[in-house]
Amino acid sequence: MSKSDIEIAREATMKPITEIGDKIGIPADQLMQYGPSKAKISYDFLQSIQDRPNGKLVLVTAISPTPAGEGKTTTTVGLGDGLNRIGKKAMICLREPSLGPCFGVKGGAAGGGYAQVVPMEDINLHFTGDFHAIGAAHNLLSALIDNHIYWGNDLGFDERRVTWRRVLDMNDRALRDIVSSLGGVANGFPRQTGFDITVASEVMAIFCLADGLKDLQERLGAIVVGYTREKKAIYARDLKAEGPMTVLLKDALMPNLVQTLENNPAFIHGGPFANIAHGCNTVSATKAGLKLADYTVTEAGFGADLGAEKFFDIKCRKAGISPDAVVIVATVRALKMHGGVAKDQLGEENVEAVKKGLENLGRHIRNVAKFGVPAVVAVNKFIKDTDAEHRAIQEYVAELGAEAVICEHWAKGSEGTEQLAQKVVALVEGGTADFRTLYDDDTGLLAKIETVAKEIYGADGIAADKKVRDQLAQWEADGFGKLPVCMAKTQYSFSTDPTLRGAPTGHTVPVREVRLSAGAGFIVAICGEIMTMPGLPRVPSANHIKLNEKGQIEGLF
Amino acid sequence: MSKSDIEIAREATMKPITEIGDKIGIPADQLMQYGPSKAKISYDFLQSIQDRPNGKLVLVTAISPTPAGEGKTTTTVGLGDGLNRIGKKAMICLREPSLGPCFGVKGGAAGGGYAQVVPMEDINLHFTGDFHAIGAAHNLLSALIDNHIYWGNDLGFDERRVTWRRVLDMNDRALRDIVSSLGGVANGFPRQTGFDITVASEVMAIFCLADGLKDLQERLGAIVVGYTREKKAIYARDLKAEGPMTVLLKDALMPNLVQTLENNPAFIHGGPFANIAHGCNTVSATKAGLKLADYTVTEAGFGADLGAEKFFDIKCRKAGISPDAVVIVATVRALKMHGGVAKDQLGEENVEAVKKGLENLGRHIRNVAKFGVPAVVAVNKFIKDTDAEHRAIQEYVAELGAEAVICEHWAKGSEGTEQLAQKVVALVEGGTADFRTLYDDDTGLLAKIETVAKEIYGADGIAADKKVRDQLAQWEADGFGKLPVCMAKTQYSFSTDPTLRGAPTGHTVPVREVRLSAGAGFIVAICGEIMTMPGLPRVPSANHIKLNEKGQIEGLF
Repeated sequence: MSKSDIEIAREATMKPITEIGDKIGIPADQLMQYGPSKAKISYDFLQSIQDRPNGKLVLVTAISPTPAGEGKTTTTVGLGDGLNRIGKKAMICLREPSLGPCFGVKGGAAGGGYAQVVPMEDINLHFTGDFHAIGAAHNLLSALIDNHIYWGNDLGFDERRVTWRRVLDMNDRALRDIVSSLGGVANGFPRQTGFDITVASEVMAIFCLADGLKDLQERLGAIVVGYTREKKAIYARDLKAEGPMTVLLKDALMPNLVQTLENNPAFIHGGPFANIAHGCNTVSATKAGLKLADYTVTEAGFGADLGAEKFFDIKCRKAGISPDAVVIVATVRALKMHGGVAKDQLGEENVEAVKKGLENLGRHIRNVAKFGVPAVVAVNKFIKDTDAEHRAIQEYVAELGAEAVICEHWAKGSEGTEQLAQKVVALVEGGTADFRTLYDDDTGLLAKIETVAKEIYGADGIAADKKVRDQLAQWEADGFGKLPVCMAKTQYSFSTDPTLRGAPTGHTVPVREVRLSAGAGFIVAICGEIMTMPGLPRVPSANHIKLNEKGQIEGLF
Repeated sequence: MSKSDIEIAREATMKPITEIGDKIGIPADQLMQYGPSKAKISYDFLQSIQDRPNGKLVLVTAISPTPAGEGKTTTTVGLGDGLNRIGKKAMICLREPSLGPCFGVKGGAAGGGYAQVVPMEDINLHFTGDFHAIGAAHNLLSALIDNHIYWGNDLGFDERRVTWRRVLDMNDRALRDIVSSLGGVANGFPRQTGFDITVASEVMAIFCLADGLKDLQERLGAIVVGYTREKKAIYARDLKAEGPMTVLLKDALMPNLVQTLENNPAFIHGGPFANIAHGCNTVSATKAGLKLADYTVTEAGFGADLGAEKFFDIKCRKAGISPDAVVIVATVRALKMHGGVAKDQLGEENVEAVKKGLENLGRHIRNVAKFGVPAVVAVNKFIKDTDAEHRAIQEYVAELGAEAVICEHWAKGSEGTEQLAQKVVALVEGGTADFRTLYDDDTGLLAKIETVAKEIYGADGIAADKKVRDQLAQWEADGFGKLPVCMAKTQYSFSTDPTLRGAPTGHTVPVREVRLSAGAGFIVAICGEIMTMPGLPRVPSANHIKLNEKGQIEGLF
């Protein structure tokens, strides 16, 4: 019987976080400790390393996710450990997990097996309070809006056009759609509104893209919170909200340092949705990693069609950073599902299904090449995988001019990613990376959406009705035309139909709605049903979460 | 021009929190640091000091508050520093301020002048995240309730009788009264509900009364969250909510250590409302203080009629602790207001008004005596006070057999409370304390309310309609009859009319509504309008809060 993630994590010997900091040259007095094994990095220190040259940047992405699991975070951690193992100074950059979903279906999000970041309970619960701070900043703005309307509405909000909602870091479907300000004159003007989960907040997206506190404050001020009757935009800065919001986020914006099970350094910082936002950890953490380590390994949300595309077209574009190599994670199990096998049949060898499913991987490989970055495929090995299945993957990938490396970090830690690490180093040192975004700033907004749909999703084109086209044209006229687009579609398919696995073609991408995230600096194109406030299942995992007699947390994982 | 609180605080030299811990014998490795100047005390250490004898306990309370200000927290801090100055090992225990109101009218709540606790910005903002944890635990329970109803409602909730609301640490009147679960089948069953501010949560009250994690979990499970159609109570434990709620509060329940401007130790932990809850810091912090110091100085919310009465009848009763002396804080300014002077006339000497206002102080002194604890009056000196005014107070108090000491901690720190500290030590060492609660557990619920109204408020009696009486009788039948009562009335008057200053007599206390806080372990008697979700003013202080060029927080104080 193999050990559970939490058992492995508890057996690990964590080093004091000051020792981890010391490994990458951060003096103890520049660490704001949160207990013995978590710390934030001071602004003074971050400032002091600004002029250092950047290390290399490696993005870990994946095939289109399936219920079989891919292990992207696990592979990111495994690769970081592997690079350290072969003598490279490597840093891992991950997203912070959301607290809400921990009480729903999924467990934690801190890797797995022998490729984890710790302390995993803390990381999955309040951690260093960043998400609470983001929620408070968001909800302060909400309160200021209704308060402004209450006291006379000088800015002329059309109460039907207040676009700014509220957030909670909780799966709570009852709050999706509410009427607020009931109960009479003292409580304001009733209006329909609702709550999203904190990770869906534009404040979260801004937090993750901001380059320092000053930039954060400017972006917060640029949030569009609603419109007048004449459809004139009202900004957060019109409410003087950006000052107190920045104050609430002052500590949160310092990157969080933790460690892997092998005591290597990892930043875990920020965690925006990968559909209505860009799905990567903070620019602060990634930039700090580049200054502190030779190799910074980071991940992006969902599959490469969403996560990597946004990493390149939004995060890298905005932050002025460029990746040196990409790792695309796949599993035999997931490829089988893309090849048409049902979840309960995944335990049996099925080389044909793997071969069929490889078209999903193939398109992701070709897509990544369009950004000018060399890629390697990491096959995250599961116990029931067969050699024949692995061979099928390796042969297919070789035909595309790339290489697929079998990785065993889940079972063996860094020993299982040594080969992957060597390959990544070879790719990076080969110096073939010539990063480019998929489209220029000057491309029209609709054309940007169309470019992603055709080039990345393999669609024939997009469908957008007049309302959407008019809205985009209006934003271009208003000066938002140079923004990149943030595609919100299902992660389960290249198309907008989540049941279409593999690499569908001939499809059309319907753009149902567009939203302006003026603070974050992108236009969200909504192509399908996007849930911004999850619910809990019939038997939520909360039912099994408790402290045991030793005071340890049970049931979280 | 005298310095502002924040200027004084910034000039202070904070010592590393490990040094502060060392002063009271806490080893550095038993401190969970949150940055260099905040720390939580580990459970292991708290466990290790359980068998030590208790030090002395001093409660700081005040006359009925007025807009003139009394300075109770400031005096608590000043007395703690004063006791340390005269060679006593003294610990201060305070409540954590709520984040929401910082953006409304008031500034911070960490003392003032040269009697402050620091780091004050942190203490007033997220601090160590306790309130966020309490909010998350509260809202998890809320989500579990609606989720349970959504999936079939096996427990048989009457949706009209769900009593558990949601909370946010924000002043947001728009959330007082809402309809949730709109938008169709997928979002649940629409019902009317609302949000309170986090400090008004029963989870907050439980958190502050809990004696360890096990007790916390039991109390959380005992929360009544709603009723069936047959009016049968449904508990949080019926939803298996107490386990995950305790997990969310696991770190929060460790007391927070900070320091005064004079580098003396202070616990700041928990902060329940002083109307619908009991208004004192955690039992955890107070008990830890008693084990660590010779003198523990703590405060209770509002005036002595509310704060001290609840401290005695709820906190001391439940926690099995007993106070050795009480300090009642008064100011010349506030006494003048009790004597009928308007706020804009407070700058002029008015001995007659002071004398008239002293009846308010007098009743508080006599009330405290009913609990068997000796008291001293601390006159928190303001610049425009005159000797004649001070003399009037001292003579009046002397007639009641007590002493009034003029204190200058605001201007001089511990030098200004040396005399008060000496007096407190004399009172304590006199050993006259013979603490008793005002009523026995076995007194009927209505009789308990009546006792407080007559004995403490000076009322002729109470008025309660049949519905209230029936409800209390029902709770007695259900086994809740031994609970103490938690009075929720205006803090501005002994009566329920906030405009009646001084010491009104002949009044009746109307009990409008009663609520069961089964987890916290008290019955709330609501006597007047009680606001559990504040709003923001026309020009909220948020408008002026921002980071300055040095990265310091402006406008918070």
